[in-house]
Amino acid sequence: MKKLSCISLMFFSLSIIAQNNLNDSLQIRKIYTEALSNSPVYEQLRFLCKNIGHRLSGSPRAAKAVTWSEKEMKKIAENVIMQEVMVPHWVRGEKEKAKLIIDGKPIQNIEILALGGSVGTPKQGITAEIIAVDSLSHLKKLGDKVKGKIVFFRRPMNPTIISTFNAYGDAGDQRYDGPSEAAKYGAIGAIVRSLGLAADNYPHTGMLFYNPDVPKIPAAAISTNTANMFDKLLAQKKKLSFQMILNSETLPDEKSYNVIGEIKGTEFPEEIIVVGGHLDSWDVGEGAHDDGTGCVQSMEVLRIFKSLGIKPKRTIRAVMFMNEENGVKGGEKYAELAKKNGEKTIAAIESDAGGHTPRGFSFQDSPAKFLKWMPYFEPYGIKQFDKGYGGTDIHPLEDQGTVLIGFMPDSQRYFDYHHTNNDVFENVNKRELEMGAATMASLVYLLSEYGVK
Amino acid sequence: MKKLSCISLMFFSLSIIAQNNLNDSLQIRKIYTEALSNSPVYEQLRFLCKNIGHRLSGSPRAAKAVTWSEKEMKKIAENVIMQEVMVPHWVRGEKEKAKLIIDGKPIQNIEILALGGSVGTPKQGITAEIIAVDSLSHLKKLGDKVKGKIVFFRRPMNPTIISTFNAYGDAGDQRYDGPSEAAKYGAIGAIVRSLGLAADNYPHTGMLFYNPDVPKIPAAAISTNTANMFDKLLAQKKKLSFQMILNSETLPDEKSYNVIGEIKGTEFPEEIIVVGGHLDSWDVGEGAHDDGTGCVQSMEVLRIFKSLGIKPKRTIRAVMFMNEENGVKGGEKYAELAKKNGEKTIAAIESDAGGHTPRGFSFQDSPAKFLKWMPYFEPYGIKQFDKGYGGTDIHPLEDQGTVLIGFMPDSQRYFDYHHTNNDVFENVNKRELEMGAATMASLVYLLSEYGVK
Repeated sequence: MKKLSCISLMFFSLSIIAQNNLNDSLQIRKIYTEALSNSPVYEQLRFLCKNIGHRLSGSPRAAKAVTWSEKEMKKIAENVIMQEVMVPHWVRGEKEKAKLIIDGKPIQNIEILALGGSVGTPKQGITAEIIAVDSLSHLKKLGDKVKGKIVFFRRPMNPTIISTFNAYGDAGDQRYDGPSEAAKYGAIGAIVRSLGLAADNYPHTGMLFYNPDVPKIPAAAISTNTANMFDKLLAQKKKLSFQMILNSETLPDEKSYNVIGEIKGTEFPEEIIVVGGHLDSWDVGEGAHDDGTGCVQSMEVLRIFKSLGIKPKRTIRAVMFMNEENGVKGGEKYAELAKKNGEKTIAAIESDAGGHTPRGFSFQDSPAKFLKWMPYFEPYGIKQFDKGYGGTDIHPLEDQGTVLIGFMPDSQRYFDYHHTNNDVFENVNKRELEMGAATMASLVYLLSEYGVK
Repeated sequence: MKKLSCISLMFFSLSIIAQNNLNDSLQIRKIYTEALSNSPVYEQLRFLCKNIGHRLSGSPRAAKAVTWSEKEMKKIAENVIMQEVMVPHWVRGEKEKAKLIIDGKPIQNIEILALGGSVGTPKQGITAEIIAVDSLSHLKKLGDKVKGKIVFFRRPMNPTIISTFNAYGDAGDQRYDGPSEAAKYGAIGAIVRSLGLAADNYPHTGMLFYNPDVPKIPAAAISTNTANMFDKLLAQKKKLSFQMILNSETLPDEKSYNVIGEIKGTEFPEEIIVVGGHLDSWDVGEGAHDDGTGCVQSMEVLRIFKSLGIKPKRTIRAVMFMNEENGVKGGEKYAELAKKNGEKTIAAIESDAGGHTPRGFSFQDSPAKFLKWMPYFEPYGIKQFDKGYGGTDIHPLEDQGTVLIGFMPDSQRYFDYHHTNNDVFENVNKRELEMGAATMASLVYLLSEYGVK
């Protein structure tokens, strides 16, 4: 292991000499300078957040966001392509209500958020005893004991995992699979400790997956502070019951669009590089970090090329994907049409990890071929070219030989905002946002010059 | 250049094999786990910010902060040392007032903050025409034209410089030296565009240096938004005058303290490692990022050692320096006494760059001897061991053979807060703060085990 790392480092250092090209270094410096001096990204994001707001797939605001993106794309792209796609249309309905009942006495109203896709409750709501579980295996052990109850998935995200995305993945089974797993044993509802690391009062929504073989039970998130309170009361052997009223329902699918802006390559126009984010958001907050930032950054890549007069050798497409949050229908449609049209998507970069200071990229297959480019990024503090997930919207391109790349900003505070009413414009920093756009544009530049060989 | 970098990288990769020790890796993992699971730093910072507040040297609040630090240190240190030091006592007095006068008509009140150390104006204030200068050399060219006027130092921080600390250094001459340089040519006052990158309404204070050979003229900061407005009006050939009333004055020096907590080394107690921040702050905001974070992080280093039962081979001292902002009397006193007492301070780490996500360390002499330790930090995203400034408080140790090390958090948003009413607890992220403390503790651990040879 250590030997290998030695050899790869030596190889890497030889590569620096061979590959680091002064012209490319200067071009990348120009890209950062342009982004940090003249970028409209922050004002674009302000418009998207403040004038449009949150924009769940199928909603009127999502339609507004599509119209706005098309208009913005026309300012910077040679071609604008609107890709029609049918998307799920889940609605939260009237605001949820919940009450905690301690030893038989209704004590206080509890702030909840239905999980995305959850069925509603009957009008009068459901009321049942709370039973806490630490994990899906703990739930399995309890088995029939959860029958007729509301299962409380209580396991916190692990704060000692350094990448908060890994900590999110580690705790996420409770939200994704928890409700259906609980329903297997007869539970009538589920509440989930929010997938966030901060102790605060924001419930975090997010998708759940219903197992088609068991009844769909209503499920909602409670804030970390509320979950901590429940833990405390349960430790004191209090008998907790919960009443919740969810008004959510799934309406018929709606027509929507992926919005695509393109600059044609001058030498290898058939080789396409995708850079994208997702235009939809959850129906809370303003979808600022998730994923307004990825959208405006992706458009900014095109604007920087145009503004600096860079004619890319390969075709570049900025893609605003629709429906990442609850269906990935946009991502699937994009890949389906790429295949159908015989397109050769050589690489796809997704920015869907927030708008914080850029740290690097994760390469889904391996970063090996691209390590030679790291020295170009060093002056900008970009030092992570890791193996890791590319992104949900670009994932459907996996079987088309596309190199899948995730843009990696600093992750430490992302889950303070993710899927909450706290994901607002004010929590995005202008300079960090611009640095991210420049970092993405720089990788797109190198890919457009040299391809992926 | 390239060859050299190749050789150093190869040397580095060989070092990984020789030096990376499993026990140390595990110890460092424990340090991060402890900081991310059990740290009181965030609550300590809350107390310092909310219950004490800003704490300029010589003020009653600075005295309160000393008392609080002493109490906190006693919980974690074997010995607590109070180092008496006389510090300057500058006071802002009653809130400043200013008015912009356009073409002879007083138009609007302008928010200003006297620069630290500024003399006051006469009671009725000063009123004069504004003359804008881009730089000290521009001022020199204008020469006598500034006579009787208020010089407006208008040059923005350069947003294209990636490290905001470098951008700060690049623009800082306007605030440090501008007022006295303007006075040389007969100016009667100075206003300085705030040293911040964000477009906002917060004036940033900070120290000025009066040249003893010219008259001391009153000087204040205006916000970047105000400066932009002045630029615009001046570009429209408006005649701008400015009235400002400053009530600041310098009172006699006050007695204060450096607060030091110590854990004695078991094998080489005579070799001392300092880790510190500064307890004083400017008299605005809450001194959260500057430098409450550095203080609580430094104390946290001791707490982590104690909590994990790590007996350091060398002596560790957490030092809350007094008076970094306007005199460095605490830093000077510490170095003076170290020399007088024949102490051997092998290394000193200062955390005075904010509480954001840790990125690495800057070694004032050279990072060369310490590159071998980088692999220990990689799992935590710490990838910068650069050559760079150690810190203002530890700088006086320079001639004692001490390795001077600056803790480097992410710098992108630091100057949104620095020296303003916006430097408050709410702008510090718990997790980022804890990650920083763990990073500092890990380096202290390695220094305590292996020294600096």
